[in-house]
Amino acid sequence: ASTLALGDKPQEEEKREENVGDVKNGGPSIGGGGDGKNSKAVASYWGVEPPKLVKEDGTEWKWSCFRPWEAYKADTSIDLKKHHVPETFLDKLAYYTVKSLRWPTDVFFQRRYGCRAMMLETVAAVPGMVGGMLLHCKSLRRFEHSGGWIKTLLEEAENERMHLMTFMEVAKPRWYERALVITVQGVFFNAYFLAYLVSPKLAHRVVGYLEEEAIHSYTEFLKELDNGNIKNVQAPAIAIDYWQLPKDATLRDVVVVVRADEAHHRDVNHFASDIHYQGLQLKDAAAPIGYH
Amino acid sequence: ASTLALGDKPQEEEKREENVGDVKNGGPSIGGGGDGKNSKAVASYWGVEPPKLVKEDGTEWKWSCFRPWEAYKADTSIDLKKHHVPETFLDKLAYYTVKSLRWPTDVFFQRRYGCRAMMLETVAAVPGMVGGMLLHCKSLRRFEHSGGWIKTLLEEAENERMHLMTFMEVAKPRWYERALVITVQGVFFNAYFLAYLVSPKLAHRVVGYLEEEAIHSYTEFLKELDNGNIKNVQAPAIAIDYWQLPKDATLRDVVVVVRADEAHHRDVNHFASDIHYQGLQLKDAAAPIGYH
Ligand SMILES: [Fe+2]
Ligand SMILES: [Fe+2]
Ligand SMILES: [Fe+2]
Ligand SMILES: [Fe+2]
Repeated sequence: ASTLALGDKPQEEEKREENVGDVKNGGPSIGGGGDGKNSKAVASYWGVEPPKLVKEDGTEWKWSCFRPWEAYKADTSIDLKKHHVPETFLDKLAYYTVKSLRWPTDVFFQRRYGCRAMMLETVAAVPGMVGGMLLHCKSLRRFEHSGGWIKTLLEEAENERMHLMTFMEVAKPRWYERALVITVQGVFFNAYFLAYLVSPKLAHRVVGYLEEEAIHSYTEFLKELDNGNIKNVQAPAIAIDYWQLPKDATLRDVVVVVRADEAHHRDVNHFASDIHYQGLQLKDAAAPIGYH
Repeated sequence: ASTLALGDKPQEEEKREENVGDVKNGGPSIGGGGDGKNSKAVASYWGVEPPKLVKEDGTEWKWSCFRPWEAYKADTSIDLKKHHVPETFLDKLAYYTVKSLRWPTDVFFQRRYGCRAMMLETVAAVPGMVGGMLLHCKSLRRFEHSGGWIKTLLEEAENERMHLMTFMEVAKPRWYERALVITVQGVFFNAYFLAYLVSPKLAHRVVGYLEEEAIHSYTEFLKELDNGNIKNVQAPAIAIDYWQLPKDATLRDVVVVVRADEAHHRDVNHFASDIHYQGLQLKDAAAPIGYH
Protein backbone atom coordinates (compact mmCIF):
# COMPACT_ATOMS: atom_id res chain seq x y z
CA ALA A 1 0.00 0.00 0.00
CA SER A 2 2.84 2.35 0.68
CA THR A 3 5.00 1.76 -2.37
CA LEU A 4 5.91 5.01 -4.03
CA ALA A 5 7.17 3.94 -7.39
CA LEU A 6 7.58 6.51 -10.12
CA GLY A 7 4.25 7.32 -11.68
CA ASP A 8 2.15 5.83 -8.90
CA LYS A 9 0.41 9.08 -8.29
CA PRO A 10 -2.30 9.97 -10.76
CA GLN A 11 -1.66 13.31 -12.35
CA GLU A 12 -4.46 15.63 -13.28
CA GLU A 13 -4.58 16.93 -16.81
CA GLU A 14 -4.13 20.59 -15.88
CA LYS A 15 -1.00 19.87 -13.91
CA ARG A 16 0.56 18.29 -16.93
CA GLU A 17 -0.35 21.24 -19.14
CA GLU A 18 1.40 23.67 -16.83
CA ASN A 19 4.64 21.84 -17.37
CA VAL A 20 4.80 21.60 -21.13
CA GLY A 21 6.84 24.75 -21.61
CA ASP A 22 9.31 23.47 -19.08
CA VAL A 23 9.92 20.07 -20.53
CA LYS A 24 10.37 21.21 -24.09
CA ASN A 25 13.41 23.34 -23.17
CA GLY A 26 15.96 21.57 -25.25
CA GLY A 27 14.61 18.25 -24.08
CA PRO A 28 12.85 15.68 -26.20
CA SER A 29 9.20 16.41 -26.81
CA ILE A 30 6.83 14.24 -24.91
CA GLY A 31 4.58 11.94 -26.87
CA GLY A 32 1.74 10.08 -25.18
CA GLY A 33 0.15 11.22 -21.96
CA GLY A 34 -1.01 8.90 -19.26
CA ASP A 35 -0.25 8.64 -15.59
CA GLY A 36 3.35 9.30 -14.69
CA LYS A 37 4.60 9.23 -18.28
CA ASN A 38 5.57 12.84 -18.00
CA SER A 39 7.77 12.50 -14.96
CA LYS A 40 9.38 9.46 -16.55
CA ALA A 41 10.23 11.49 -19.62
CA VAL A 42 11.70 14.28 -17.51
CA ALA A 43 13.76 11.79 -15.54
CA SER A 44 15.20 10.18 -18.61
CA TYR A 45 15.87 13.62 -20.12
CA TRP A 46 18.09 14.33 -17.14
CA GLY A 47 19.49 10.82 -17.39
CA VAL A 48 18.69 10.05 -13.78
CA GLU A 49 15.95 7.45 -14.05
CA PRO A 50 16.19 5.21 -10.98
CA PRO A 51 17.35 1.69 -11.80
CA LYS A 52 14.84 -1.14 -11.62
CA LEU A 53 15.86 -3.08 -8.54
CA VAL A 54 14.99 -6.66 -7.73
CA LYS A 55 14.91 -8.60 -4.48
CA GLU A 56 16.97 -11.71 -3.89
CA ASP A 57 14.04 -13.84 -4.98
CA GLY A 58 13.84 -11.98 -8.29
CA THR A 59 10.67 -10.02 -7.55
CA GLU A 60 10.63 -6.27 -8.04
CA TRP A 61 11.93 -4.09 -5.21
CA LYS A 62 8.87 -2.34 -3.84
CA TRP A 63 10.43 0.47 -1.84
CA SER A 64 11.90 3.74 -2.92
CA CYS A 65 12.41 5.04 0.62
CA PHE A 66 15.22 2.52 1.10
CA ARG A 67 17.26 0.22 -1.15
CA PRO A 68 18.24 -3.46 -0.96
CA TRP A 69 21.77 -2.56 0.14
CA GLU A 70 20.41 -0.68 3.16
CA ALA A 71 18.71 -3.79 4.50
CA TYR A 72 20.57 -5.54 7.34
CA LYS A 73 20.26 -8.02 10.16
CA ALA A 74 19.99 -6.44 13.60
CA ASP A 75 22.38 -7.69 16.27
CA THR A 76 19.84 -9.09 18.74
CA SER A 77 22.64 -10.44 20.93
CA ILE A 78 23.39 -6.89 22.10
CA ASP A 79 23.37 -6.33 25.88
CA LEU A 80 20.01 -4.73 26.73
CA LYS A 81 20.87 -3.99 30.35
CA LYS A 82 23.87 -1.75 29.91
CA HIS A 83 23.37 1.53 31.72
CA HIS A 84 25.50 4.59 32.17
CA VAL A 85 25.35 5.51 35.87
CA PRO A 86 25.04 9.32 36.03
CA GLU A 87 27.75 10.81 38.23
CA THR A 88 28.67 14.25 36.94
CA PHE A 89 26.27 17.16 37.05
CA LEU A 90 25.70 17.04 33.29
CA ASP A 91 24.99 13.31 33.37
CA LYS A 92 22.43 13.81 36.12
CA LEU A 93 20.86 16.68 34.23
CA ALA A 94 20.55 14.41 31.19
CA TYR A 95 19.25 11.50 33.24
CA TYR A 96 16.58 13.37 35.17
CA THR A 97 15.47 15.30 32.10
CA VAL A 98 14.76 12.01 30.37
CA LYS A 99 13.18 10.47 33.47
CA SER A 100 10.88 13.47 33.91
CA LEU A 101 9.69 13.07 30.31
CA ARG A 102 8.81 9.45 30.98
CA TRP A 103 5.89 10.18 33.31
CA PRO A 104 3.72 12.34 30.98
CA THR A 105 4.47 9.92 28.13
CA ASP A 106 3.27 6.97 30.21
CA VAL A 107 0.11 8.84 31.16
CA PHE A 108 -0.62 9.84 27.57
CA PHE A 109 -0.10 6.45 25.93
CA GLN A 110 -1.03 4.07 28.78
CA ARG A 111 -0.53 0.63 27.28
CA ARG A 112 -1.02 1.52 23.62
CA TYR A 113 2.54 0.49 22.77
CA GLY A 114 2.04 0.39 19.01
CA CYS A 115 0.83 3.96 18.99
CA ARG A 116 3.51 4.96 21.46
CA ALA A 117 6.24 3.47 19.29
CA MET A 118 4.93 5.26 16.21
CA MET A 119 4.70 8.61 17.94
CA LEU A 120 8.04 8.44 19.70
CA GLU A 121 9.91 7.39 16.57
CA THR A 122 8.96 10.71 14.98
CA VAL A 123 10.98 12.32 17.78
CA ALA A 124 13.75 9.71 17.84
CA ALA A 125 14.74 10.51 14.27
CA VAL A 126 15.55 14.14 15.10
CA PRO A 127 18.80 14.04 17.14
CA GLY A 128 20.81 12.09 14.56
CA MET A 129 19.80 14.52 11.84
CA VAL A 130 20.56 17.59 13.94
CA GLY A 131 23.91 16.24 15.15
CA GLY A 132 24.92 15.05 11.67
CA MET A 133 23.97 18.38 10.13
CA LEU A 134 25.88 20.41 12.71
CA LEU A 135 28.99 18.23 12.37
CA HIS A 136 28.73 18.49 8.59
CA CYS A 137 28.65 22.29 8.72
CA LYS A 138 31.51 22.31 11.22
CA SER A 139 33.60 20.04 9.01
CA LEU A 140 33.08 22.46 6.11
CA ARG A 141 33.73 25.60 8.15
CA ARG A 142 36.92 24.28 9.68
CA PHE A 143 38.26 22.30 6.73
CA GLU A 144 38.35 19.23 8.96
CA HIS A 145 37.69 15.53 8.54
CA SER A 146 34.65 14.17 10.34
CA GLY A 147 36.01 10.87 11.63
CA GLY A 148 32.91 9.27 10.13
CA TRP A 149 30.58 10.72 12.77
CA ILE A 150 28.46 12.67 10.31
CA LYS A 151 27.58 9.43 8.57
CA THR A 152 27.05 7.56 11.84
CA LEU A 153 24.58 10.14 13.11
CA LEU A 154 22.77 10.44 9.78
CA GLU A 155 22.50 6.65 9.62
CA GLU A 156 20.95 6.70 13.08
CA ALA A 157 18.38 9.24 11.87
CA GLU A 158 17.68 7.13 8.80
CA ASN A 159 17.25 4.02 10.94
CA GLU A 160 14.83 5.79 13.29
CA ARG A 161 12.83 6.98 10.30
CA MET A 162 12.59 3.36 9.14
CA HIS A 163 11.27 2.48 12.60
CA LEU A 164 8.56 5.05 12.01
CA MET A 165 7.79 3.77 8.51
CA THR A 166 7.37 0.34 10.11
CA PHE A 167 5.13 1.29 13.03
CA MET A 168 3.01 3.46 10.73
CA GLU A 169 1.84 0.20 9.15
CA VAL A 170 0.73 -1.11 12.55
CA ALA A 171 -0.84 1.98 14.12
CA LYS A 172 -2.44 4.75 12.07
CA PRO A 173 -2.05 8.26 13.49
CA ARG A 174 -5.27 10.13 14.32
CA TRP A 175 -5.63 13.82 13.48
CA TYR A 176 -4.82 15.06 16.97
CA GLU A 177 -1.76 12.83 17.05
CA ARG A 178 -0.61 14.37 13.78
CA ALA A 179 -1.09 17.81 15.28
CA LEU A 180 0.83 16.77 18.37
CA VAL A 181 3.77 15.49 16.31
CA ILE A 182 4.10 18.80 14.49
CA THR A 183 4.24 20.70 17.78
CA VAL A 184 6.59 18.26 19.46
CA GLN A 185 8.95 18.24 16.48
CA GLY A 186 9.04 22.02 16.40
CA VAL A 187 9.98 22.20 20.07
CA PHE A 188 12.31 19.21 20.20
CA PHE A 189 14.22 20.03 16.99
CA ASN A 190 15.06 23.49 18.24
CA ALA A 191 15.79 22.38 21.80
CA TYR A 192 18.14 19.65 20.61
CA PHE A 193 19.77 22.01 18.09
CA LEU A 194 20.56 24.50 20.84
CA ALA A 195 21.64 21.79 23.27
CA TYR A 196 24.02 20.38 20.66
CA LEU A 197 25.52 23.80 20.00
CA VAL A 198 26.01 24.47 23.71
CA SER A 199 27.06 20.99 24.85
CA PRO A 200 27.28 17.99 22.52
CA LYS A 201 28.42 16.09 25.62
CA LEU A 202 25.03 16.68 27.24
CA ALA A 203 23.10 16.19 24.01
CA HIS A 204 24.56 12.75 23.28
CA ARG A 205 24.08 11.74 26.92
CA VAL A 206 20.41 12.70 26.73
CA VAL A 207 20.00 10.53 23.63
CA GLY A 208 21.82 7.70 25.40
CA TYR A 209 19.27 7.84 28.21
CA LEU A 210 16.34 8.24 25.81
CA GLU A 211 17.49 5.04 24.13
CA GLU A 212 17.65 3.28 27.51
CA GLU A 213 14.00 4.25 28.01
CA ALA A 214 13.17 3.10 24.49
CA ILE A 215 14.62 -0.33 25.27
CA HIS A 216 12.46 -0.43 28.38
CA SER A 217 9.30 0.51 26.45
CA TYR A 218 9.94 -2.06 23.74
CA THR A 219 10.45 -4.70 26.43
CA GLU A 220 7.03 -3.76 27.86
CA PHE A 221 5.63 -3.94 24.32
CA LEU A 222 6.97 -7.50 24.05
CA LYS A 223 5.33 -8.43 27.38
CA GLU A 224 1.97 -7.17 26.13
CA LEU A 225 2.39 -9.17 22.94
CA ASP A 226 3.31 -12.27 24.90
CA ASN A 227 0.39 -12.08 27.31
CA GLY A 228 -2.02 -11.45 24.43
CA ASN A 229 -3.05 -7.90 25.32
CA ILE A 230 -1.73 -6.76 21.95
CA LYS A 231 -2.36 -9.00 18.97
CA ASN A 232 0.81 -10.39 17.46
CA VAL A 233 -0.07 -9.58 13.86
CA GLN A 234 1.98 -10.31 10.74
CA ALA A 235 5.07 -8.17 10.38
CA PRO A 236 4.64 -5.32 7.87
CA ALA A 237 6.21 -6.07 4.47
CA ILE A 238 8.55 -3.11 4.76
CA ALA A 239 9.96 -4.47 8.04
CA ILE A 240 10.55 -7.91 6.52
CA ASP A 241 12.55 -6.35 3.70
CA TYR A 242 14.42 -3.87 5.88
CA TRP A 243 15.58 -6.27 8.61
CA GLN A 244 15.78 -9.30 6.31
CA LEU A 245 13.23 -11.16 8.43
CA PRO A 246 11.64 -14.47 7.41
CA LYS A 247 8.44 -14.19 5.38
CA ASP A 248 6.25 -15.36 8.28
CA ALA A 249 7.77 -12.89 10.76
CA THR A 250 5.40 -11.26 13.25
CA LEU A 251 5.14 -7.94 15.03
CA ARG A 252 7.03 -9.53 17.93
CA ASP A 253 10.04 -10.21 15.68
CA VAL A 254 9.93 -6.60 14.53
CA VAL A 255 9.87 -5.23 18.07
CA VAL A 256 12.86 -7.43 18.94
CA VAL A 257 15.02 -6.06 16.10
CA VAL A 258 13.89 -2.49 16.72
CA ARG A 259 14.88 -2.85 20.37
CA ALA A 260 18.31 -4.11 19.29
CA ASP A 261 18.66 -1.00 17.10
CA GLU A 262 17.85 1.19 20.09
CA ALA A 263 20.48 -0.57 22.18
CA HIS A 264 22.99 0.15 19.43
CA HIS A 265 22.00 3.84 19.40
CA ARG A 266 22.35 3.90 23.19
CA ASP A 267 25.92 2.64 22.93
CA VAL A 268 26.87 5.01 20.12
CA ASN A 269 25.49 8.06 21.91
CA HIS A 270 26.95 7.26 25.34
CA PHE A 271 30.24 6.60 23.55
CA ALA A 272 29.99 9.97 21.78
CA SER A 273 29.35 11.68 25.10
CA ASP A 274 32.30 9.83 26.67
CA ILE A 275 34.59 11.07 23.90
CA HIS A 276 33.62 14.64 24.78
CA TYR A 277 34.18 13.85 28.48
CA GLN A 278 37.73 12.93 27.58
CA GLY A 279 38.25 16.42 26.24
CA LEU A 280 38.31 15.17 22.67
CA GLN A 281 36.09 15.94 19.73
CA LEU A 282 34.15 13.25 17.92
CA LYS A 283 36.38 13.53 14.85
CA ASP A 284 39.33 12.42 17.00
CA ALA A 285 37.87 8.94 17.50
CA ALA A 286 36.87 6.92 14.46
CA ALA A 287 33.11 6.47 14.39
CA PRO A 288 31.40 3.11 14.62
CA ILE A 289 29.97 2.66 11.14
CA GLY A 290 28.60 -0.46 9.56
CA TYR A 291 26.01 -1.67 12.05
CA HIS A 292 23.07 -0.65 9.90
CA ALA B 1 48.83 13.42 7.12
CA SER B 2 45.12 13.70 7.55
CA THR B 3 44.31 10.24 8.81
CA LEU B 4 42.21 10.41 11.94
CA ALA B 5 42.45 6.90 13.29
CA LEU B 6 41.37 6.23 16.84
CA GLY B 7 44.04 7.33 19.25
CA ASP B 8 45.91 9.50 16.78
CA LYS B 9 45.52 12.56 18.94
CA PRO B 10 47.85 12.77 21.92
CA GLN B 11 45.93 13.13 25.15
CA GLU B 12 47.26 15.14 28.03
CA GLU B 13 47.41 13.54 31.45
CA GLU B 14 44.91 15.87 33.10
CA LYS B 15 42.29 15.20 30.47
CA ARG B 16 42.48 11.53 31.19
CA GLU B 17 42.15 12.07 34.95
CA GLU B 18 38.94 14.05 34.48
CA ASN B 19 37.36 11.04 32.89
CA VAL B 20 38.14 8.31 35.37
CA GLY B 21 34.93 8.67 37.33
CA ASP B 22 33.03 8.44 34.10
CA VAL B 23 34.60 5.31 32.77
CA LYS B 24 34.43 3.33 35.96
CA ASN B 25 30.63 3.55 36.08
CA GLY B 26 29.94 -0.09 35.79
CA GLY B 27 32.56 -0.38 33.09
CA PRO B 28 35.88 -2.14 33.33
CA SER B 29 38.64 -0.15 35.00
CA ILE B 30 41.27 1.14 32.67
CA GLY B 31 44.75 -0.28 32.97
CA GLY B 32 47.66 1.30 31.16
CA GLY B 33 47.72 4.90 29.99
CA GLY B 34 49.26 6.05 26.78
CA ASP B 35 47.93 7.85 23.75
CA GLY B 36 44.41 6.94 22.83
CA LYS B 37 44.24 3.92 25.14
CA ASN B 38 41.48 5.54 27.08
CA SER B 39 39.17 6.21 24.19
CA LYS B 40 39.78 2.69 22.98
CA ALA B 41 38.76 1.30 26.37
CA VAL B 42 35.63 3.45 26.41
CA ALA B 43 34.77 2.36 22.89
CA SER B 44 35.10 -1.30 23.71
CA TYR B 45 33.10 -0.80 26.91
CA TRP B 46 30.22 0.40 24.74
CA GLY B 47 30.97 -2.37 22.30
CA VAL B 48 31.20 0.01 19.38
CA GLU B 49 34.86 -0.18 18.43
CA PRO B 50 35.15 0.53 14.70
CA PRO B 51 36.23 -2.49 12.68
CA LYS B 52 39.74 -2.58 11.24
CA LEU B 53 39.23 -2.09 7.54
CA VAL B 54 41.64 -3.01 4.79
CA LYS B 55 42.00 -1.87 1.21
CA GLU B 56 41.77 -4.23 -1.74
CA ASP B 57 45.56 -4.58 -1.71
CA GLY B 58 45.48 -5.65 1.95
CA THR B 59 46.93 -2.47 3.42
CA GLU B 60 45.10 -0.75 6.26
CA TRP B 61 42.25 1.61 5.36
CA LYS B 62 43.54 5.07 6.24
CA TRP B 63 40.33 7.07 6.33
CA SER B 64 37.67 7.37 8.93
CA CYS B 65 35.77 10.13 7.15
CA PHE B 66 34.66 7.63 4.51
CA ARG B 67 34.68 3.85 4.12
CA PRO B 68 35.76 1.50 1.33
CA TRP B 69 32.13 0.86 0.37
CA GLU B 70 31.60 4.57 -0.25
CA ALA B 71 34.33 4.68 -2.89
CA TYR B 72 33.08 4.65 -6.48
CA LYS B 73 34.00 5.33 -10.07
CA ALA B 74 32.61 8.60 -11.42
CA ASP B 75 30.69 8.46 -14.69
CA THR B 76 32.95 10.65 -16.82
CA SER B 77 30.87 9.92 -19.92
CA ILE B 78 28.14 12.21 -18.56
CA ASP B 79 27.01 15.02 -20.89
CA LEU B 80 28.75 18.19 -19.68
CA LYS B 81 26.85 20.55 -21.98
CA LYS B 82 23.29 19.91 -20.84
CA HIS B 83 21.59 23.14 -19.85
CA HIS B 84 18.13 23.96 -18.63
CA VAL B 85 16.95 26.98 -20.64
CA PRO B 86 15.19 29.29 -18.16
CA GLU B 87 11.68 30.14 -19.37
CA THR B 88 9.43 30.65 -16.37
CA PHE B 89 9.87 33.55 -13.97
CA LEU B 90 11.24 31.30 -11.24
CA ASP B 91 13.74 29.71 -13.61
CA LYS B 92 14.97 33.14 -14.68
CA LEU B 93 15.20 34.25 -11.06
CA ALA B 94 17.32 31.17 -10.33
CA TYR B 95 19.45 31.63 -13.44
CA TYR B 96 20.24 35.31 -12.99
CA THR B 97 20.83 34.91 -9.26
CA VAL B 98 23.52 32.36 -10.03
CA LYS B 99 24.92 34.41 -12.93
CA SER B 100 25.16 37.51 -10.75
CA LEU B 101 27.16 35.55 -8.17
CA ARG B 102 29.62 34.51 -10.87
CA TRP B 103 31.12 37.95 -11.38
CA PRO B 104 32.29 38.70 -7.80
CA THR B 105 33.58 35.15 -7.54
CA ASP B 106 35.64 35.54 -10.71
CA VAL B 107 37.05 38.82 -9.45
CA PHE B 108 37.93 37.36 -6.05
CA PHE B 109 39.64 34.20 -7.23
CA GLN B 110 41.00 35.28 -10.63
CA ARG B 111 42.72 32.18 -11.95
CA ARG B 112 43.48 30.49 -8.65
CA TYR B 113 41.30 27.51 -9.51
CA GLY B 114 42.59 25.23 -6.77
CA CYS B 115 41.74 27.78 -4.14
CA ARG B 116 38.45 28.55 -5.84
CA ALA B 117 37.47 24.88 -5.87
CA MET B 118 38.31 24.47 -2.19
CA MET B 119 36.37 27.57 -1.16
CA LEU B 120 33.30 26.89 -3.28
CA GLU B 121 33.02 23.26 -2.14
CA THR B 122 32.43 24.51 1.40
CA VAL B 123 29.31 26.18 0.01
CA ALA B 124 28.36 23.37 -2.37
CA ALA B 125 27.93 20.91 0.49
CA VAL B 126 25.20 23.00 2.12
CA PRO B 127 22.12 22.60 -0.14
CA GLY B 128 22.06 18.80 -0.04
CA MET B 129 22.24 18.82 3.75
CA VAL B 130 19.53 21.47 4.12
CA GLY B 131 17.22 19.80 1.62
CA GLY B 132 17.78 16.35 3.08
CA MET B 133 17.17 17.59 6.60
CA LEU B 134 13.96 19.40 5.66
CA LEU B 135 12.62 16.39 3.76
CA HIS B 136 13.53 14.15 6.70
CA CYS B 137 11.59 16.32 9.14
CA LYS B 138 8.67 16.50 6.72
CA SER B 139 8.64 12.73 6.32
CA LEU B 140 8.44 12.38 10.12
CA ARG B 141 5.81 15.07 10.59
CA ARG B 142 3.52 13.72 7.91
CA PHE B 143 4.10 10.00 8.40
CA GLU B 144 5.16 9.79 4.75
CA HIS B 145 7.72 7.86 2.76
CA SER B 146 10.52 9.89 1.26
CA GLY B 147 10.85 8.28 -2.15
CA GLY B 148 14.57 8.03 -1.43
CA TRP B 149 15.13 11.77 -1.85
CA ILE B 150 16.41 12.30 1.68
CA LYS B 151 19.22 9.86 0.98
CA THR B 152 19.90 11.30 -2.48
CA LEU B 153 20.31 14.81 -1.14
CA LEU B 154 22.38 13.73 1.86
CA GLU B 155 24.61 11.73 -0.48
CA GLU B 156 25.08 14.83 -2.58
CA ALA B 157 26.14 16.75 0.55
CA GLU B 158 28.51 13.94 1.51
CA ASN B 159 30.00 13.90 -1.98
CA GLU B 160 30.55 17.67 -1.95
CA ARG B 161 32.24 17.38 1.42
CA MET B 162 34.58 14.79 -0.08
CA HIS B 163 35.36 17.30 -2.86
CA LEU B 164 36.37 19.70 -0.12
CA MET B 165 38.48 17.10 1.70
CA THR B 166 40.25 16.53 -1.62
CA PHE B 167 40.94 20.15 -2.58
CA MET B 168 42.06 20.89 0.99
CA GLU B 169 45.08 18.71 0.21
CA VAL B 170 45.92 20.84 -2.84
CA ALA B 171 45.23 24.36 -1.57
CA LYS B 172 45.56 25.34 2.07
CA PRO B 173 43.11 27.97 3.30
CA ARG B 174 44.56 31.21 4.66
CA TRP B 175 43.16 32.84 7.79
CA TYR B 176 41.03 35.39 5.94
CA GLU B 177 39.69 32.63 3.72
CA ARG B 178 38.66 30.69 6.81
CA ALA B 179 36.92 33.78 8.14
CA LEU B 180 35.18 34.26 4.81
CA VAL B 181 33.93 30.68 4.78
CA ILE B 182 32.32 31.08 8.20
CA THR B 183 30.48 34.21 7.07
CA VAL B 184 29.44 32.77 3.73
CA GLN B 185 28.17 29.55 5.32
CA GLY B 186 26.14 31.49 7.87
CA VAL B 187 24.45 33.54 5.15
CA PHE B 188 24.07 30.77 2.56
CA PHE B 189 22.79 28.11 4.95
CA ASN B 190 20.00 30.35 6.17
CA ALA B 191 19.19 31.73 2.72
CA TYR B 192 18.95 28.24 1.25
CA PHE B 193 16.96 27.00 4.24
CA LEU B 194 14.38 29.75 3.75
CA ALA B 195 14.35 29.34 -0.02
CA TYR B 196 13.72 25.61 0.36
CA LEU B 197 10.85 26.24 2.77
CA VAL B 198 9.26 28.79 0.46
CA SER B 199 9.95 27.13 -2.90
CA PRO B 200 11.86 23.86 -3.27
CA LYS B 201 11.21 24.28 -6.99
CA LEU B 202 13.34 27.44 -7.00
CA ALA B 203 15.91 26.05 -4.57
CA HIS B 204 16.67 22.96 -6.67
CA ARG B 205 16.77 25.07 -9.85
CA VAL B 206 19.34 27.38 -8.24
CA VAL B 207 21.49 24.38 -7.36
CA GLY B 208 21.08 23.05 -10.91
CA TYR B 209 22.46 26.33 -12.25
CA LEU B 210 25.20 26.49 -9.62
CA GLU B 211 26.31 23.06 -10.79
CA GLU B 212 26.32 24.25 -14.42
CA GLU B 213 28.70 27.01 -13.32
CA ALA B 214 30.80 24.50 -11.38
CA ILE B 215 31.22 22.40 -14.52
CA HIS B 216 32.35 25.55 -16.34
CA SER B 217 34.89 26.41 -13.62
CA TYR B 218 36.33 22.91 -13.54
CA THR B 219 36.66 23.00 -17.33
CA GLU B 220 38.65 26.25 -16.96
CA PHE B 221 40.71 24.54 -14.22
CA LEU B 222 41.53 21.74 -16.70
CA LYS B 223 42.60 24.30 -19.32
CA GLU B 224 44.99 25.91 -16.84
CA LEU B 225 46.41 22.50 -15.98
CA ASP B 226 46.83 21.66 -19.66
CA ASN B 227 48.59 24.88 -20.59
CA GLY B 228 50.89 24.57 -17.59
CA ASN B 229 49.69 27.61 -15.62
CA ILE B 230 48.78 25.29 -12.77
CA LYS B 231 51.13 22.45 -11.96
CA ASN B 232 49.60 19.05 -12.52
CA VAL B 233 50.71 17.55 -9.21
CA GLN B 234 50.10 14.03 -7.92
CA ALA B 235 46.51 13.33 -6.94
CA PRO B 236 45.95 13.43 -3.14
CA ALA B 237 45.83 9.95 -1.59
CA ILE B 238 42.27 10.52 -0.35
CA ALA B 239 41.09 11.21 -3.91
CA ILE B 240 42.73 8.06 -5.22
CA ASP B 241 40.90 5.99 -2.64
CA TYR B 242 37.58 7.80 -2.97
CA TRP B 243 37.28 7.70 -6.76
CA GLN B 244 39.21 4.45 -7.18
CA LEU B 245 41.81 6.18 -9.36
CA PRO B 246 45.06 4.57 -10.46
CA LYS B 247 48.02 5.06 -8.11
CA ASP B 248 49.77 7.45 -10.47
CA ALA B 249 46.69 9.65 -10.95
CA THR B 250 47.23 13.39 -11.13
CA LEU B 251 45.30 16.49 -10.13
CA ARG B 252 43.92 16.57 -13.67
CA ASP B 253 42.30 13.15 -13.18
CA VAL B 254 40.77 14.39 -9.96
CA VAL B 255 39.30 17.50 -11.57
CA VAL B 256 37.79 15.32 -14.31
CA VAL B 257 35.94 13.07 -11.86
CA VAL B 258 34.86 15.97 -9.67
CA ARG B 259 33.43 17.68 -12.76
CA ALA B 260 31.50 14.49 -13.59
CA ASP B 261 30.08 14.54 -10.04
CA GLU B 262 28.93 18.14 -10.54
CA ALA B 263 27.22 17.18 -13.79
CA HIS B 264 25.40 14.45 -11.90
CA HIS B 265 24.29 16.92 -9.22
CA ARG B 266 23.12 19.29 -11.97
CA ASP B 267 20.89 16.56 -13.41
CA VAL B 268 19.52 15.49 -10.04
CA ASN B 269 18.65 19.03 -9.00
CA HIS B 270 17.11 20.10 -12.30
CA PHE B 271 15.13 16.86 -12.19
CA ALA B 272 13.97 17.63 -8.65
CA SER B 273 12.87 21.08 -9.75
CA ASP B 274 11.05 19.57 -12.75
CA ILE B 275 9.14 17.22 -10.45
CA HIS B 276 7.89 20.24 -8.51
CA TYR B 277 7.01 21.97 -11.80
CA GLN B 278 4.76 19.03 -12.56
CA GLY B 279 2.83 19.75 -9.40
CA LEU B 280 4.23 16.68 -7.71
CA GLN B 281 6.30 16.31 -4.59
CA LEU B 282 9.71 14.68 -4.63
CA LYS B 283 8.43 11.64 -2.75
CA ASP B 284 6.09 10.93 -5.68
CA ALA B 285 8.99 10.14 -8.01
CA ALA B 286 11.54 7.57 -6.96
CA ALA B 287 14.89 9.24 -6.38
CA PRO B 288 17.99 8.48 -8.40
CA ILE B 289 20.18 6.67 -5.88
CA GLY B 290 23.28 4.66 -6.50
CA TYR B 291 25.51 6.99 -8.50
CA HIS B 292 27.85 7.64 -5.61
FE1 LIG C 1 13.64 3.88 17.15
FE1 LIG D 1 16.89 4.88 18.87
FE1 LIG E 1 31.64 19.81 -5.70
FE1 LIG F 1 28.07 19.79 -6.99
